[in-house]
Amino acid sequence: MSRTRTIGEAELRSLATGAGVLGTGGGTHPYLELLNIEKLYREGRHARLISADALGDDELVAVVGLMGAPLVTKERLPDPDHVLRPVRLMEDFTGRRFDAVMSIEIGSENSILPLMVSALCGIPVVDADTMGRAFPEAQMASFAIRGLSLTPFVISDIRDNDLVITRTEDALWTERIGRRVCTELGSIVATCSAPRTGREVKDHAILGSISRAIRLGEAVMNARRRHESPIAAVLIAERGVHLFRGKVSDVARRTTGGFVRGEAQIEGVDEFAGDVFLVDFQNEFTIGRHAGEVRVTVPDLICILDSLTGTALGTETIRYGQRVDILSLPCDPIMSSSEGLQRVGPRAFGYDFDFVSLHRMAA
Amino acid sequence: MSRTRTIGEAELRSLATGAGVLGTGGGTHPYLELLNIEKLYREGRHARLISADALGDDELVAVVGLMGAPLVTKERLPDPDHVLRPVRLMEDFTGRRFDAVMSIEIGSENSILPLMVSALCGIPVVDADTMGRAFPEAQMASFAIRGLSLTPFVISDIRDNDLVITRTEDALWTERIGRRVCTELGSIVATCSAPRTGREVKDHAILGSISRAIRLGEAVMNARRRHESPIAAVLIAERGVHLFRGKVSDVARRTTGGFVRGEAQIEGVDEFAGDVFLVDFQNEFTIGRHAGEVRVTVPDLICILDSLTGTALGTETIRYGQRVDILSLPCDPIMSSSEGLQRVGPRAFGYDFDFVSLHRMAA
Repeated sequence: MSRTRTIGEAELRSLATGAGVLGTGGGTHPYLELLNIEKLYREGRHARLISADALGDDELVAVVGLMGAPLVTKERLPDPDHVLRPVRLMEDFTGRRFDAVMSIEIGSENSILPLMVSALCGIPVVDADTMGRAFPEAQMASFAIRGLSLTPFVISDIRDNDLVITRTEDALWTERIGRRVCTELGSIVATCSAPRTGREVKDHAILGSISRAIRLGEAVMNARRRHESPIAAVLIAERGVHLFRGKVSDVARRTTGGFVRGEAQIEGVDEFAGDVFLVDFQNEFTIGRHAGEVRVTVPDLICILDSLTGTALGTETIRYGQRVDILSLPCDPIMSSSEGLQRVGPRAFGYDFDFVSLHRMAA
Repeated sequence: MSRTRTIGEAELRSLATGAGVLGTGGGTHPYLELLNIEKLYREGRHARLISADALGDDELVAVVGLMGAPLVTKERLPDPDHVLRPVRLMEDFTGRRFDAVMSIEIGSENSILPLMVSALCGIPVVDADTMGRAFPEAQMASFAIRGLSLTPFVISDIRDNDLVITRTEDALWTERIGRRVCTELGSIVATCSAPRTGREVKDHAILGSISRAIRLGEAVMNARRRHESPIAAVLIAERGVHLFRGKVSDVARRTTGGFVRGEAQIEGVDEFAGDVFLVDFQNEFTIGRHAGEVRVTVPDLICILDSLTGTALGTETIRYGQRVDILSLPCDPIMSSSEGLQRVGPRAFGYDFDFVSLHRMAA
């Protein structure tokens, strides 16, 4: 039996839909990336999937991701060759070939990137990621939380500029340097962070992420087809909590330092009529307040979905007048561990309070 | 006969003095670097000098320099191991050892850096540089003017952060990316730009720079010893033009984007009484105006020297009340060539007029 399987063409749309929800506002539904991988499929170039368990301990995995402000990913057509470039450069730099590829995050656009690499050069996509959602900064990856170095860290822009951050004091410095370079290069760069062994992936990645996003996307699309509630489908598929329903009444956003930051205000409808829900964001949604009280925080996922279609809305696409449901999905235990919270808890985002999960662990 | 000679301890002070004058305001007299190399000499570690002519065509030369705002070089003690780090990293990256080392610029601090590398690891310093003075930006090097790539370009900060810019569209992008990184890393980084062959150095570097700075410094120091005019000594040694004598009456400076920018106003004394001379700067002095008329511009050197001692004053050290002489020294022909002027002429610094040399070539 083969240890890999081809990802079916029908699964691509499910993956994109699920990844949009798991993007928690950072990028939303990766429509342009979906068109792009579908084009590769039409050319006969398919992506294959491999379970992390099937990786040899010494096999080498490329960890890819786009770094930048979400708006730019909505304005530029993605280019698979651009995504592949830092992977090849990393191979040149280390003198070793990769056996597989995975994404830094399952949320939104970055879910599709490893499929592009797989379709172009034949190595399989590992069914895993390093965030279980989307986060705005590089040091928020599970590998960094577990103390693995992110360097060497390769950056390629859309022109002919490439660089390798060969060593940093810690993952925060990798992020700082990378972010500055990214901003100078147009707030969108393709990256390949430190090669990981199969053993490291098995021990420190978030496993099953691609399958999870495909399942979630299928649940949403099935609900749409059956004229059932896609909101309910997400809640059931991900054991989520419904937080609010309302109409977007105000959005303030500014793109600074390579991020989009701001806040959205949602006025309640139905049983929430008269209430207001406020959501802060830095690329992704970070904090939700209901009637002035903090109700949900990073690292739990905050998802704002179109009430009718279940389509994920993002920090760049949310706008006045949209009818939305606000959900929270539980984060991965790596993220809510004490090391995890130091990197991705509310204090890491500049808030003066601690994380309290909405979600009771069903362990 | 050996093809190298040890740079004598007495020459170090001459080199520093001459390099201060050739710094044209960018960094001034490199006092801290001088103390540093003198300390290495006391430990028995000496720098050796090699003429570019004595280099084999295939020998490999490291091109080193500090990138940053001049003020930071006045506030931090230099560290020879920091200067050596990007050289070693470049060797690791290319898989080739260097046979010699040279400076990106003879002006100010950067004149001493290759001596530190030589003293630490034994390879000789090439008697050459790439500017014949100091300039603020990487693409202003003669190698870049002659169309050679500056990449790979290695950057090391004072912590443990290192990176390699492996490829850029052109030298301007190397500067842009490097400057952003430099600013994020505290506005002071040690760099090693693309390795150069002996042939490239002979063809495209500015030759004899170290010897020139030593001779110039000796002329200034001899004049001081003999109670003669150090200003006259500089004019004679470098075939310079005397432009103005006066008292600094105003200085405006701001450090932005990794540079110090601003302007200095000098009120005339003696035969210049009643006149005003204005000097603009971006790390180095760029433009001089006498009574409102442009009198001198980049790439010719503008030197502001203490009238009594001949000590070079810099964009960070010039201040109200100083008695100064303003001189211009001729630039290297590479800089005043048509390719040169595109990179280092007045228009490259944002001015709306062309370069006219004060200096008649004695060719």
